[in-house]
Amino acid sequence: MLVVMQAGATPEQIARVIDTIQSLDLTPHPLPGATRTAIGITGNTGAVDSRQLEVLDGVKECIRVTKPYKLASREMHPADTVIDLPQGKLGPGTFTVIAGPCSVENEAMILKTAEFLVEIGVRFLRAGAFKPRTSPYAFQGMGLEGLKILQKARERTGIAIVTELMDTEYAAAVEEAVDVIQIGTRNMQNFSLLKRVSQTRKPVLLKRGMSATLEEWLMAAEYVMAGGNYRVILCERGVRTFSDHSRNTLDLSVIPPAKSLSHLPVFVDPSHGTGKRAYVPAMSLAALAAGADGLLVEAHPEPDRALSDGAQSLDFNGLKALLGQMRQLAVPLARKMA
Amino acid sequence: MLVVMQAGATPEQIARVIDTIQSLDLTPHPLPGATRTAIGITGNTGAVDSRQLEVLDGVKECIRVTKPYKLASREMHPADTVIDLPQGKLGPGTFTVIAGPCSVENEAMILKTAEFLVEIGVRFLRAGAFKPRTSPYAFQGMGLEGLKILQKARERTGIAIVTELMDTEYAAAVEEAVDVIQIGTRNMQNFSLLKRVSQTRKPVLLKRGMSATLEEWLMAAEYVMAGGNYRVILCERGVRTFSDHSRNTLDLSVIPPAKSLSHLPVFVDPSHGTGKRAYVPAMSLAALAAGADGLLVEAHPEPDRALSDGAQSLDFNGLKALLGQMRQLAVPLARKMA
Amino acid sequence: MLVVMQAGATPEQIARVIDTIQSLDLTPHPLPGATRTAIGITGNTGAVDSRQLEVLDGVKECIRVTKPYKLASREMHPADTVIDLPQGKLGPGTFTVIAGPCSVENEAMILKTAEFLVEIGVRFLRAGAFKPRTSPYAFQGMGLEGLKILQKARERTGIAIVTELMDTEYAAAVEEAVDVIQIGTRNMQNFSLLKRVSQTRKPVLLKRGMSATLEEWLMAAEYVMAGGNYRVILCERGVRTFSDHSRNTLDLSVIPPAKSLSHLPVFVDPSHGTGKRAYVPAMSLAALAAGADGLLVEAHPEPDRALSDGAQSLDFNGLKALLGQMRQLAVPLARKMA
Amino acid sequence: MLVVMQAGATPEQIARVIDTIQSLDLTPHPLPGATRTAIGITGNTGAVDSRQLEVLDGVKECIRVTKPYKLASREMHPADTVIDLPQGKLGPGTFTVIAGPCSVENEAMILKTAEFLVEIGVRFLRAGAFKPRTSPYAFQGMGLEGLKILQKARERTGIAIVTELMDTEYAAAVEEAVDVIQIGTRNMQNFSLLKRVSQTRKPVLLKRGMSATLEEWLMAAEYVMAGGNYRVILCERGVRTFSDHSRNTLDLSVIPPAKSLSHLPVFVDPSHGTGKRAYVPAMSLAALAAGADGLLVEAHPEPDRALSDGAQSLDFNGLKALLGQMRQLAVPLARKMA
Repeated sequence: MLVVMQAGATPEQIARVIDTIQSLDLTPHPLPGATRTAIGITGNTGAVDSRQLEVLDGVKECIRVTKPYKLASREMHPADTVIDLPQGKLGPGTFTVIAGPCSVENEAMILKTAEFLVEIGVRFLRAGAFKPRTSPYAFQGMGLEGLKILQKARERTGIAIVTELMDTEYAAAVEEAVDVIQIGTRNMQNFSLLKRVSQTRKPVLLKRGMSATLEEWLMAAEYVMAGGNYRVILCERGVRTFSDHSRNTLDLSVIPPAKSLSHLPVFVDPSHGTGKRAYVPAMSLAALAAGADGLLVEAHPEPDRALSDGAQSLDFNGLKALLGQMRQLAVPLARKMA
Repeated sequence: MLVVMQAGATPEQIARVIDTIQSLDLTPHPLPGATRTAIGITGNTGAVDSRQLEVLDGVKECIRVTKPYKLASREMHPADTVIDLPQGKLGPGTFTVIAGPCSVENEAMILKTAEFLVEIGVRFLRAGAFKPRTSPYAFQGMGLEGLKILQKARERTGIAIVTELMDTEYAAAVEEAVDVIQIGTRNMQNFSLLKRVSQTRKPVLLKRGMSATLEEWLMAAEYVMAGGNYRVILCERGVRTFSDHSRNTLDLSVIPPAKSLSHLPVFVDPSHGTGKRAYVPAMSLAALAAGADGLLVEAHPEPDRALSDGAQSLDFNGLKALLGQMRQLAVPLARKMA
Repeated sequence: MLVVMQAGATPEQIARVIDTIQSLDLTPHPLPGATRTAIGITGNTGAVDSRQLEVLDGVKECIRVTKPYKLASREMHPADTVIDLPQGKLGPGTFTVIAGPCSVENEAMILKTAEFLVEIGVRFLRAGAFKPRTSPYAFQGMGLEGLKILQKARERTGIAIVTELMDTEYAAAVEEAVDVIQIGTRNMQNFSLLKRVSQTRKPVLLKRGMSATLEEWLMAAEYVMAGGNYRVILCERGVRTFSDHSRNTLDLSVIPPAKSLSHLPVFVDPSHGTGKRAYVPAMSLAALAAGADGLLVEAHPEPDRALSDGAQSLDFNGLKALLGQMRQLAVPLARKMA
Repeated sequence: MLVVMQAGATPEQIARVIDTIQSLDLTPHPLPGATRTAIGITGNTGAVDSRQLEVLDGVKECIRVTKPYKLASREMHPADTVIDLPQGKLGPGTFTVIAGPCSVENEAMILKTAEFLVEIGVRFLRAGAFKPRTSPYAFQGMGLEGLKILQKARERTGIAIVTELMDTEYAAAVEEAVDVIQIGTRNMQNFSLLKRVSQTRKPVLLKRGMSATLEEWLMAAEYVMAGGNYRVILCERGVRTFSDHSRNTLDLSVIPPAKSLSHLPVFVDPSHGTGKRAYVPAMSLAALAAGADGLLVEAHPEPDRALSDGAQSLDFNGLKALLGQMRQLAVPLARKMA
């Protein structure tokens, strides 16, 4: 961390800052300059609120240098994390598609979807048993009954199950029922929930918050990892901006820096990112080309009759066609696809 | 809701849209125009996902007309909601200050703060026992022990307690201990938590999500009200934008539309909104002038030694001076202040 | 356009709205509903400010249905625009790379760059003679002398020249010197400049404004087309958001809707979009996969010594390697590359 | 400026950075730390692109310490700038209202407005002769004829004229005709225009760009001041965010930091900021309470018939009522109002 003093800061003000730094068990390194003095700080500055120093007299600003995350950081852990499940490896070198409907609507549609996915080579099924809905009057998901349906789909087809956990109350049930626990965008900073899933033995797919910076996203991953669960998958799903041509602004540009700053796999959800089925294929191909490790994509046997998010769901033919295009594109990009 | 057909939509496409609307138990009203046809929809469209219609062939776009919230809506409930507590009324005509430190650090500082607040006429104490922190390595609050300290402050001074609830696990304890339950910005769409507090008998202060639209904020209030708890206080605390001169962008401009669309009281948190103590007084005065019903402001006996958010906390003298300014300003604005 | 009345609007208020619509030479179509009345409007509503109606008593809101652009609209002009220049066709089916340094620094580097580009198959050179710089103290470009150097590069190598025009004063000189006139992001709504280039005979590459919606961008294109210059190329270059991991947030998700709403070619500038050289290749490949028609990319013989934007420039080896990757990727995407 | 090296940077990499800094005529100050080395830089770093250093091997990031603006900076020029015109002083201690219609529509309405304004004590008239319109098909203003009408209003009433200049072509005419030259939000980074008005003898009211940071805004002021025109008035008018309850998000929170970082007067335009007449009074009072030095507000004799922006214009009664409220509020705030 670096404290920058104002141009006219007095020696007393500088001394006060140095004292304060020492009282925090950190080491100050004064650096006098032509027009002003800066003070470098070394030691464990991770938990220091830089504004504590900024309020001291004579301080102009305080600049953080060290990243506050450790376990999620590539600098501390240079090798890529690859998550190895019976249905496939998630991480660099591969490109994994996780597909399925927004929500579990009934047993028949989930089994039909699972069978179709396995048939076309997709080995990860996504579907929500618990649904976060903006309106209290909208369908809220089938709950525990939905989890049972998902388990049946796995038993029948061997497909891996990815589903969202919305509160600690159902953590044990979801952990038991699924292969990957999804944390939704609205819960990226639900720290109680992050701590709870850090205690599970299942990988966690962590969606980026709607207005989360990359650092905040990695700090959320750090919460899960700090509790002992190192198998975290980051998933970009669009951020909130002024731009109104799509439901959210899918930020594919976060992929290269996320992979540079962290060793965790990065997935992309083009369905929530765009909100419109017609734009999903282009964004899926772009995600693959941009270096993502996989896709979380909505597909439904009859999107026009879906109970939620039908408008952004591909139908089965659409998903099959997209898979074909992605497999072709994966070749020059040297990525393995199931 | 209004469905707008494309310029060249065929009669068959129009008929298909009309059928679909009827299958949703709604009534279609075709409206042929010079270059295209629009179809008005009446009935209970609250839970309809407009994109279900947008994916039909020949549809250009689908426009929502009715607001999806009812209980929070001023149209349905024209009279202002005033929350009547022993320590004062929260709502139009008054201006209520809720002040205190970011977190409960120890008993002495809370008692000292409560006594000071009562002395200067502030009858609501805010302080966090449970703290949402971006870093898992930062101080996470004193928890249940903190609640006990807050209760002791109330017993001693009669001050009302406002504190944040972060998860359903501690809902009963927080409901028991406090006078107003705060839902933080990161939990504005933690629907499990909203449903849980809808079952309590305590008023809920609902902070606006970092990137929540006004409609989403009112829908979050609707979750609480739909469960039977009608005493909701909205609290603006700054939103996420490109702007980097302050911690968040305090959106005072949301006050007039919030009060126009809803009958609920609207408070402002200038401390998180700006993130810097020096900017808090100006924004507090502006909030009062803009029509807010009160303030949630951080004050600490020794801000420079605070365990969290000290940089945005006023010290006692600063709070007292601000109160004096606000009381003067309240006169021409015809607002009562304690 | 659709006017939505409040739930309790009186017949007199409705009549007043109908009168006002007629006074604007438009036709009102009242549509009574269960809880409120809506009034459809037909006629030429393009230049109507919807807020004129919103201020009338009893009006809840006013919703625009028809798009305000005509010439840029695919609905009016379904066929793709392809811009045919001696150096290549710009538009669907191809993928065209425009490369070069941020600014013209001297004759030697421009000639060297042009020769290298032609050698590797790039037939469009970008370089700024006039530079928009945030600081008045930064290098502002070589001006007219820079234009002469660019012309010399074209004479020597046959390469097409793309350069930015910043003010009407130099419009004639730039029109004379270059093959494509670039309008920068800061000037996307410099309407005087748009009108001026609408009078030239050269194609216009129109960068998206930093915070422009898709509609505003297409309206800016409409300005150029309304003046008689139909050869407009849209160029996405990153938008302003809260996200801080890159210089701007490159919005690749705008490509599908831009191509759906308009017939104009869409290019992408990954250099300004990301601001960092290391992220340019991934975003270039993603732009190609997302359906862009070409790339505007910064390349410099010695990026570390560039007078401006060196950090986001590829070096020659980097550009050559990227071209190779893009040519491989273009095959499964059925796109021709020079 | 501070260069932060990566944890594992080699001595050679550090030496290379030091060399590069020296080659830019700056002085490096190496600062070895526990886990990494940082290198402070002193000298004139204002025009250095920090990314030039960031691309060197072993560099983690590069942090700017000194502000790039000088003339606009309060640090360099601690005393407040007050702009002294015959019609009043603009700056701290006063609160000045500039009012009038969006555009000059005809002579009668301008004279009527000017007379009304003078009668109620407003001595600055705003009205556009040249109008920046999103659509090429919308009314573009009366141009030079409009300027003549404004001059006539001044001759008759002594009112000062504030009007927008959109291009260099009309700079001389506008300079001649008006008392304050307005630069609109879309032209805040039209550097040719900024350089041109830096050559005039009239004060410049510089609107903040729709997505400009405070630093960029001050750099735009620096352009005008660097050319010799020190009389710049900053004017906040709302920024572009995800928030959709108002036309723009009026950023009142920029006032305290703008006044802290710069000595220039800060005005607020609540009309464009909100886009709705009903919200203008609340935001005007809030601007005054927040510390703004004045207001730029739209008022029209018959807003419902205005050729542009009628929906955000106050009518005469509305303006008069608002003035009354502001004069009452100015008393406890110790601000003089005409």
